[in-house]
Amino acid sequence: MEPDRDDAAEQGTVVTPSAEFPPLGAEERAALGRLGARWHGPRRADDLPVDPTLGRRDHRPRPTRFGRLTPIDLFTVAEPDELVATGPAHLPDDRRGRALTRLRRSLVGPPLASSSVLYERMRKLVALPVLSSDLLSSVAYGPEAMLAVLVLAGGAALGLALPLAALLAVLMVAVGLSYRQTIPAYPHGAGSYIVAGDNLGRTPGLAAAAGLMLDYVLTVSVSVAAGVHAVTSALPGLTRWTVPIGVLVIAVLLAGNLRGVRTAGNIFVLPTYAFVVVLLVVLAVGYAKAAARGFAPVPPPAVPAAEGLGLLLVLRAFSSGAVSMTGIEAVSNAVPAFRPTEWRNARTTLGWMVAMLVTLFAGLVGLIHLDGLVPRADETVLSQLGRVTFPTGPWYAILQATTALILLLAANTAFNDFPRLLFFMARDGHAPRRFLHMGDRLAFSNGLVALALTALVVFVAFGGHTQSLIPLYAVGVFLAFTLSQAGMVVHWRRRRGRGWRRRLAVNAVGATLSGLVLLTAAVAKFTEGAWVVVVAVPLLVLLFRRIHGHYATVHRALALHPPPPHAPPGPAGSAEGEELPQQVRHLVVVPVARLNRASLRAMAYAASLGRPTLAVHIAPEEAEADRFREQWRAWGDHLRLETIVSPYRAVIGPLAHYLEALHTARPELTLTVIVPEVVLRRRRHRLLHSRAEQRLRAALRPLPGVVVTSVPVHVSH
Amino acid sequence: MEPDRDDAAEQGTVVTPSAEFPPLGAEERAALGRLGARWHGPRRADDLPVDPTLGRRDHRPRPTRFGRLTPIDLFTVAEPDELVATGPAHLPDDRRGRALTRLRRSLVGPPLASSSVLYERMRKLVALPVLSSDLLSSVAYGPEAMLAVLVLAGGAALGLALPLAALLAVLMVAVGLSYRQTIPAYPHGAGSYIVAGDNLGRTPGLAAAAGLMLDYVLTVSVSVAAGVHAVTSALPGLTRWTVPIGVLVIAVLLAGNLRGVRTAGNIFVLPTYAFVVVLLVVLAVGYAKAAARGFAPVPPPAVPAAEGLGLLLVLRAFSSGAVSMTGIEAVSNAVPAFRPTEWRNARTTLGWMVAMLVTLFAGLVGLIHLDGLVPRADETVLSQLGRVTFPTGPWYAILQATTALILLLAANTAFNDFPRLLFFMARDGHAPRRFLHMGDRLAFSNGLVALALTALVVFVAFGGHTQSLIPLYAVGVFLAFTLSQAGMVVHWRRRRGRGWRRRLAVNAVGATLSGLVLLTAAVAKFTEGAWVVVVAVPLLVLLFRRIHGHYATVHRALALHPPPPHAPPGPAGSAEGEELPQQVRHLVVVPVARLNRASLRAMAYAASLGRPTLAVHIAPEEAEADRFREQWRAWGDHLRLETIVSPYRAVIGPLAHYLEALHTARPELTLTVIVPEVVLRRRRHRLLHSRAEQRLRAALRPLPGVVVTSVPVHVSH
Repeated sequence: MEPDRDDAAEQGTVVTPSAEFPPLGAEERAALGRLGARWHGPRRADDLPVDPTLGRRDHRPRPTRFGRLTPIDLFTVAEPDELVATGPAHLPDDRRGRALTRLRRSLVGPPLASSSVLYERMRKLVALPVLSSDLLSSVAYGPEAMLAVLVLAGGAALGLALPLAALLAVLMVAVGLSYRQTIPAYPHGAGSYIVAGDNLGRTPGLAAAAGLMLDYVLTVSVSVAAGVHAVTSALPGLTRWTVPIGVLVIAVLLAGNLRGVRTAGNIFVLPTYAFVVVLLVVLAVGYAKAAARGFAPVPPPAVPAAEGLGLLLVLRAFSSGAVSMTGIEAVSNAVPAFRPTEWRNARTTLGWMVAMLVTLFAGLVGLIHLDGLVPRADETVLSQLGRVTFPTGPWYAILQATTALILLLAANTAFNDFPRLLFFMARDGHAPRRFLHMGDRLAFSNGLVALALTALVVFVAFGGHTQSLIPLYAVGVFLAFTLSQAGMVVHWRRRRGRGWRRRLAVNAVGATLSGLVLLTAAVAKFTEGAWVVVVAVPLLVLLFRRIHGHYATVHRALALHPPPPHAPPGPAGSAEGEELPQQVRHLVVVPVARLNRASLRAMAYAASLGRPTLAVHIAPEEAEADRFREQWRAWGDHLRLETIVSPYRAVIGPLAHYLEALHTARPELTLTVIVPEVVLRRRRHRLLHSRAEQRLRAALRPLPGVVVTSVPVHVSH
Repeated sequence: MEPDRDDAAEQGTVVTPSAEFPPLGAEERAALGRLGARWHGPRRADDLPVDPTLGRRDHRPRPTRFGRLTPIDLFTVAEPDELVATGPAHLPDDRRGRALTRLRRSLVGPPLASSSVLYERMRKLVALPVLSSDLLSSVAYGPEAMLAVLVLAGGAALGLALPLAALLAVLMVAVGLSYRQTIPAYPHGAGSYIVAGDNLGRTPGLAAAAGLMLDYVLTVSVSVAAGVHAVTSALPGLTRWTVPIGVLVIAVLLAGNLRGVRTAGNIFVLPTYAFVVVLLVVLAVGYAKAAARGFAPVPPPAVPAAEGLGLLLVLRAFSSGAVSMTGIEAVSNAVPAFRPTEWRNARTTLGWMVAMLVTLFAGLVGLIHLDGLVPRADETVLSQLGRVTFPTGPWYAILQATTALILLLAANTAFNDFPRLLFFMARDGHAPRRFLHMGDRLAFSNGLVALALTALVVFVAFGGHTQSLIPLYAVGVFLAFTLSQAGMVVHWRRRRGRGWRRRLAVNAVGATLSGLVLLTAAVAKFTEGAWVVVVAVPLLVLLFRRIHGHYATVHRALALHPPPPHAPPGPAGSAEGEELPQQVRHLVVVPVARLNRASLRAMAYAASLGRPTLAVHIAPEEAEADRFREQWRAWGDHLRLETIVSPYRAVIGPLAHYLEALHTARPELTLTVIVPEVVLRRRRHRLLHSRAEQRLRAALRPLPGVVVTSVPVHVSH
């Protein structure tokens, strides 16, 4: 079977710093050329008054007035007309900024160059632990989540765990098979966001993305909570520090990921395999012991029933157990990270993972039943099982340690996936564009911080209690599963490749089962917290759509259009229209409050532009206006002066209105307002000045066709 | 005797909106002319592309893209080259701003034109109540303040009130005579700040100002507290609302003064005269009753002594009684407000005032003693006296009402004097310049708000309790008295006019006595609250000096200097030096992130200036740089392009450093950085954009010789 090629999916998983600079579309490209052809500016000046490559400099760097060393040495010449900024060019200018940067660098490390983006390929034996930590770690809390619901109906109801586990195993295999088919169809990686968006349309794609985002947030919260619980089960003295420990863990994860800890490699291999091995040992020893007593189940302790054993309770237990499947989508997202043939290796790995998941999950549920264990608040079921299986020896400690470790890795997985998802959404304009930006460690710092903060809030709000978080978890996950599988159904119907009916059927089964779990979770756990997700997903989708709408509007407004065939350069145009130098008609306006070095510099600058220039003075009284005109004549009356008496003493308002009046009188003029700006070094001194320059700029910002130029005068005090 | 003329004093009390635009000094004026003579710009262009007087417009106003009506009609043409902004030109542009302005105007009234500044002259009979409300109202709490201290040593100690009152009467006459001499010496008004600053130097002047500022704040707090107490003495049910009533009163005073309630006129006349008449009736009836029983004092109720009767207690009582003198300086501040001959009328008025003060104060203390009244927390002594004197009839109610009213007027006086003091200080650069600004109601809004807020804090902090505020009051007042009188001593020694020795002696006595009271108050009441003032005055003086230092530095930096005889226009100069068009050497730099309408407009604008132009692109990767250059060539390569690869993906830092490197290579160049700025209408949409324009502007602000030009593109969404 040949994998399909899909253009949209092809750019699917390429993460590059250049995404902030999207290339032009074909239409814009054509418009660009036609605009260029009509450009009648002055000839391209290659004789600039300074060598822009800084190559022929004859000065040594020397401190400037503002006490900084000139960073000429900060650039190296690459090709002609190209410089490369070296490290120090990224340091801020002022002392406080540099100190902060140094502190930050000592925490997260020196900057990494764009060329260090890793496009690493993984062997299957490495890919398996890297991609399965999220999935396999779920068995640390999944079986317990199911039992914790059943036990509400009393100890006797615990027997239902076995058939439910069998059902879940079927579900796992079905969803696994379903994803198995996605892999060759999307060999460039297939997040639910991309698959659902491709095949079902924008809104389902965004709904899948919203579900995934909540999933990632809860993966962090739940994994950290379960990991801390594994530790406190072994060391009960730490129980009252649950929340601080969890907060610390999230902070360390954030810091590590800001440093840019790579997902790949050795960190994952050992703990994941160790966890699997230890669990297999637990199962082997446990079942051996059970066999020794003829598989007679130990009767569980008598637990009083808090609720009746109804259908709703069983459904709740089922959907709680289903959280064991979170992370099953990881392989299909990461196909390009495998060695060739990528899709084939990925598919094999997924097979192994599902097999391991089913084995561990079913084995654990069976053994827990045989040993008659009951969920308790102070100790995890896995820990109880460890103590029963290994009454002595180091195995119990190893079990708890590897459990905590793999849960930490699972949380870390979300730190990789969440910012990537935001990156893809931002690239499509569905999320704020700042999530496109790779920080100086090549990490998506904004996304990392967003994830850590949200997960922190959730973790603290729920007191670090795993079982309280579970109801929120299942809904988001299975929403993404359902939409992704449903997308594949549509995909097969459209493509109709060889054997498409069979493939469609497999994905349809997966989608239907996932959808049933989604419904079950949403309905059965609505009042327990699932309502938060049910409300949040549509709100998020709405938000994403509005963000997209805004970016689309801005893009349309800024897109290049070919010039009209006979562009009239005359007075009919508007100053906002011109993209050609010959269309610009200048009027330079200099507001002058008083005659001093700052305003004379502004006027000298204005006059040096050699365009029609008008000076404007705003006077509070007739007498002051006369006095100012008298000074103006003493200066030599070099510029046309217009005086506006503002009898109510406002300055900014009348000036802005005057400029708008000029604009209305001749809309095709570009008014360049040249404002002297006194630059003070100390922030507290700015309190002593009126900041008229800033207020004027704010007042002029909405005016069309008004260009504002600040001519600074520095006061070094 | 002819009054002396003093240049510094001459501009002393002129309050004008033009103070924000100080005229040039002689030296700067000369430099201005010489700079003008060397100006070699293009000839003055009188053929502007638009008529700046807007007189010949042929368009009707029409809504612009941003939904506002063009305000051409907002200007009327006065003389040639002069427009007058009419009312609506002061309205803000956006809907919310206009609504706020309308709300504000409905509270404080429509704007007043600068020409409405009142220079009213008062008859003596009007001036007397206007200027004496502060002074005379003090007798409502002064005697009680003295008795409240004495009674701490038991009822028997109250007998000391009579000799202390005699001492205070002597003090009043001495200080009154002292101020009487100040009036002809400073016929243009003599605040303590001006007199002390003129004669003793800057620091004593600032100390006097600090004392006065505290005095004004406490005048508001104490007068409001005493006024509310007068009301609650008559209506005890209101006692628990003391603080809210006081806060409301201060708020009303602020609102009234923001409206610009004039000090002059009829508001003051009736309450002040009524208060004096009612008090005289109280005295007459009271002494008549006492005479009927042969002036035999009613023995005061037995009060247990809380403290021993020591010297410190007597001194505290004395300095508490001295607060009756606050406001005695009012006449000497306001000499120009009198009808001619100003100083003569002012001096006569001061004589009357002091006579009335002594009469009322001494008469009240004597009568209180005869009636055996003792200060109580729930009722003022004046109220007790009223009840004793008028057991029935409306006189008691009239007494309390006029007392509350004159105290309100006294507080209002501070609302006039405090912003004026700040105005004079700001004119000398000792206070933030914003206190020079007259709001659209011609009131010094900033000063009014500052006073109201401070007085409010003090009032609330002391729970609206008059007697707790008294210890803070005396120190500031007598500091100003002492410095003012001491200044007069120096004045006479310098001037040595006719009879200067006698005049010097009178002022020396006044200064010495005031100084003694100051010391007494500061020492005896140090622990009771006077320490606040003792600490605050030096801190305020330091603050004023530092403000002055800052303004002086800025002024020096911006002052005009004549050009050097042979100004070299060559590469030796620096871009910050030029004040002549022929000295400006241009290099235009356009940072271009991507090619769209915004950046093409910026480049068209840049090219239309016809100066050497360089486009700069910052690329995160080599690949992106190549792609951009390819687009650039497709456009036509009309401008020289320099690409900077920023391997750590920062944009602002490398760009700023590159510009600084260009500047260092050729410091005489003026670099004009032309930045396209996408203007969004909604604030929340700005969250979705990187605001690179603002960050670039902030990074470039400290660079010398870099002019930043924003070319806006408006997105109407």
